Amino acid sequence: MSSKKHTRSAEGEAQFAYQGLDRLIHEHARLSVLTALITNNPGLSFNELKKMCQLTDGNLSRHLAILDEAGLITIFKGIEGNRSLTLCRITSEGRKRYTEYLAVLERVVTDAAGAIRVDTQRKETDKTLRS
Amino acid sequence: MSSKKHTRSAEGEAQFAYQGLDRLIHEHARLSVLTALITNNPGLSFNELKKMCQLTDGNLSRHLAILDEAGLITIFKGIEGNRSLTLCRITSEGRKRYTEYLAVLERVVTDAAGAIRVDTQRKETDKTLRS
Repeated sequence: MSSKKHTRSAEGEAQFAYQGLDRLIHEHARLSVLTALITNNPGLSFNELKKMCQLTDGNLSRHLAILDEAGLITIFKGIEGNRSLTLCRITSEGRKRYTEYLAVLERVVTDAAGAIRVDTQRKETDKTLRS
Repeated sequence: MSSKKHTRSAEGEAQFAYQGLDRLIHEHARLSVLTALITNNPGLSFNELKKMCQLTDGNLSRHLAILDEAGLITIFKGIEGNRSLTLCRITSEGRKRYTEYLAVLERVVTDAAGAIRVDTQRKETDKTLRS
């Protein structure tokens, strides 16, 4: 469901719905893979991704296939020396969707961090008043 | 798996594993509910949560039960006037785990936002050089 379908007042009421939290990107393993790829522009090999994201071969393969299918990454299969090499890169569509997702994630962090800070300050004030 | 099991060098290699991204909290609906509860300290009613998080009755009930079972929230059932009222609050354990989760989420945002900023600057420099 696109967030564009919601009216301004519905959006206001649904302050914590975080509609733009793209399910495709939000999943832990895929969020790891895409964050690794967006910060490594020339691309990463299958083995580099496996180490950086601490995923098993099967798990990484499965999530790469999902991201490739959705057009968020491209997978090159080739030969380097005498070894086969799988190289993954984020596409411009992937970069665009990740950037949109990140804006929502930043909103979660801002919403929550503010509340936690206020709560910590309140506890410190209570402590000062009691001492 | 606890992140404490990893050695420093394994953590360094697995830069994008984000081990502390607690699965219980990371799920979209539960992240919405917990963020709403952490920013509304006195607690929220079932209907308020439903509107704020844009969840159906069934979906909200299911996720509240999971969070209650895990000790992250408490659910009070009572009567207000002549209507039944369900009130939810985040527990101190919930607040602690959410705060730990948030620290990891902030790391994702910092990692990715830095890369996106560099990429945007690079494109702007390219544009200036071409013009």
